[in-house]
Amino acid sequence: MQILKNPAKETWNELLKRPMQDPEQIRESVTTILDDVRKNGDFAIRKYTRALDGADLEDFRVSPATMQKAEEELDDALKDAIKRSASNIRKFHEAQNGGDISVDVQAGLRCWQKAVPMDRIGIYIPGGSAPLFSSVMMMAVPARVAGCKDIVLVTPPDENGEVHPAILYAAARSGVDRIYRIGGAQAVAALAYGTQTIPQVDKIFGPGNQFVTLAKQMVSLEGVAIDLPAGPSEVLVVADKNTPPRFIAADLLSQAEHGPDSQVILIADDEQLIDRAKRAVEQMMQQLPKQEIIGRSLESSKLIFLTDQRQIMDMVNYYAPEHLILATENADELAGEVRNAGSVFIGNYTPESLGDYSSGTNHVLPTNGAAKAYSGVNLDSFRKRITFQKADRKALEDIGSATMEMAKAEGLEAHRKAVEVRLNDQNASL
Amino acid sequence: MQILKNPAKETWNELLKRPMQDPEQIRESVTTILDDVRKNGDFAIRKYTRALDGADLEDFRVSPATMQKAEEELDDALKDAIKRSASNIRKFHEAQNGGDISVDVQAGLRCWQKAVPMDRIGIYIPGGSAPLFSSVMMMAVPARVAGCKDIVLVTPPDENGEVHPAILYAAARSGVDRIYRIGGAQAVAALAYGTQTIPQVDKIFGPGNQFVTLAKQMVSLEGVAIDLPAGPSEVLVVADKNTPPRFIAADLLSQAEHGPDSQVILIADDEQLIDRAKRAVEQMMQQLPKQEIIGRSLESSKLIFLTDQRQIMDMVNYYAPEHLILATENADELAGEVRNAGSVFIGNYTPESLGDYSSGTNHVLPTNGAAKAYSGVNLDSFRKRITFQKADRKALEDIGSATMEMAKAEGLEAHRKAVEVRLNDQNASL
Repeated sequence: MQILKNPAKETWNELLKRPMQDPEQIRESVTTILDDVRKNGDFAIRKYTRALDGADLEDFRVSPATMQKAEEELDDALKDAIKRSASNIRKFHEAQNGGDISVDVQAGLRCWQKAVPMDRIGIYIPGGSAPLFSSVMMMAVPARVAGCKDIVLVTPPDENGEVHPAILYAAARSGVDRIYRIGGAQAVAALAYGTQTIPQVDKIFGPGNQFVTLAKQMVSLEGVAIDLPAGPSEVLVVADKNTPPRFIAADLLSQAEHGPDSQVILIADDEQLIDRAKRAVEQMMQQLPKQEIIGRSLESSKLIFLTDQRQIMDMVNYYAPEHLILATENADELAGEVRNAGSVFIGNYTPESLGDYSSGTNHVLPTNGAAKAYSGVNLDSFRKRITFQKADRKALEDIGSATMEMAKAEGLEAHRKAVEVRLNDQNASL
Repeated sequence: MQILKNPAKETWNELLKRPMQDPEQIRESVTTILDDVRKNGDFAIRKYTRALDGADLEDFRVSPATMQKAEEELDDALKDAIKRSASNIRKFHEAQNGGDISVDVQAGLRCWQKAVPMDRIGIYIPGGSAPLFSSVMMMAVPARVAGCKDIVLVTPPDENGEVHPAILYAAARSGVDRIYRIGGAQAVAALAYGTQTIPQVDKIFGPGNQFVTLAKQMVSLEGVAIDLPAGPSEVLVVADKNTPPRFIAADLLSQAEHGPDSQVILIADDEQLIDRAKRAVEQMMQQLPKQEIIGRSLESSKLIFLTDQRQIMDMVNYYAPEHLILATENADELAGEVRNAGSVFIGNYTPESLGDYSSGTNHVLPTNGAAKAYSGVNLDSFRKRITFQKADRKALEDIGSATMEMAKAEGLEAHRKAVEVRLNDQNASL
């Protein structure tokens, strides 16, 4: 952990730089897989699932019997936790419903905007022994609230062709319509192009390894919508002399345990607090598994002392963190000054992990500074806004002259004529 | 114009296929330009502006004196038309304001979502003798309504280093903060990376040629947000026996005059109407400039007769048109069944050109089927939604157990500990 004291503004860019991602080495294999699946559909999927996941599957879809078994197998405490968290996620995303608007911009001319759910969306969930079933809920629950008709989940099988029961249970609780046991770039290709058995979707969501991330990027250039540009996870904690160092340490370590390239930053206006937080991290780290990952992440972590109060929020907004924890006494006030962040955690009793699982906000958030322009996943990630307009003859007579004038100036004569023929016609019905 | 009668559903995919874009040939030159601008800033910009636009500029920025001159030069009728249209655009986008939500998901745990404007956005406007000043308004007016602090416009200069006065006037009326006389991939690079004189922006908007489009795509992979995937413009008209054929013809031709790859489709349940519309197009075309462009676009246009009423809206939603004109007697009813479209024009007095300029809706819309997952440009294109949460100790005691249970199951011990240390601490203040 590197301690920095009142770094000059000119150094912020270098200081807060994220690691560069270079997907070039794997571009060729991802291109090959995408092409193969587009041309050969299920045949290619089966081949890659055998080669990469070690499972030879005749049918990728998870059966109702398997779903049933997962529910029976899973620990009751975990099932209960999933249910309670899903309920909060549902509440917060339901509150985002509505928002349709309608305006008479002038007499006889109404314009409106309507949120319409996407028909079919796809969710990618990585596999492994500790799978991210919480991400299932973060995408499927809002998709269901938005009104998507078909929610498709893909996740790689283990060598026995099986999927972790927590993923299956979370999917069932969240309203997923069907689950396919496929992963990697081949799963992204299946969702993007469709195969004989796997349907093409309108938008692809979800985290994944570099193959999945690059595949999502590549199909997005072909017009398939994707959720967010992906990068390593990040937390920035703002603290003061009253913040308990153990709280800070646990929050920084929560981020560091995600991976060696996780970004961990603390900003405080108290030098002693920074030293105490550093010691608390070193101590608490000893009690944790994943020490190697944590160690590597902490190597590039920054503990920044800033005297100037205004500079603190300037730096926060400059960095645009995925997760922002405001644990100072004036946290509520600082919250009002946040311009760039994914999700904000306020006060001493709102650890980031609460939002990762249970508070109700979404944990799929913009990383790598994307919070300057991107929202995290929310209800509107599963809907599009369609605009409508309807003019009557009188309104067209009124505003139509402006349209004709502008069309003429842009050299678009048929555009002008589309107004003129209507105004010249005395017989058309409304 | 190809007439098709009751095409079978299995043929829709082939029938409604859009032309493929292949940017591969220009990828190398765009890559070179992007790299050059990133490394050499203004020096590279000046070089490309000299080579590609034929203007050698020492200062790219448009001066206040030039802005003043543009206002004086421009025709009063056009200025008035711009003002009236901008006013409608402002009204409709102002109505999209608000939408912040706050929920107590449980006692002591509040979650909220706030729309926050992007700090600085960039708008690209192509040059030429009939420049798209209407697009200036479509992006700058909502950016201003959203509250962006700095609205930067770039547009290529002519050989004399000048910009069309209509662009300058529309920019001034719409609240653009500064204008730079640069274009092409080099302008996109300037906005994406920043140079000595041109500031880096959070998101890049606007239409352009294939170099601009590819440059936007490429910088988007580096994390710079862009507005929409770009493709040729499209209109789909739904008509019945009562729709005046001249109205249909003018609307189809409005689309066709945009470019040789514009997509023009008519669907109707009346064979005679289709024949009459076809004749009206052929007749009206004779009175128009740009006949070669129109002719090439119409070559691939489709006039589709569908008997089955339900199939009409199925085909509309399958195609997901950028512009949808519903000019049937039951247009209001059909409007309720639209699931995929950019913007919808209802009735006989709402030509597409009204929305292109003056109705108030945005004309930057998803093409190429992207309307299945993308909205057109709207107020939220210039804002992001940030989520916040705040729990008190009691709420954390309640829901924290669910968080700890799930963190444990995902193998994230520090996440679990971040709740535990707080519940174990008796002394921390709120």
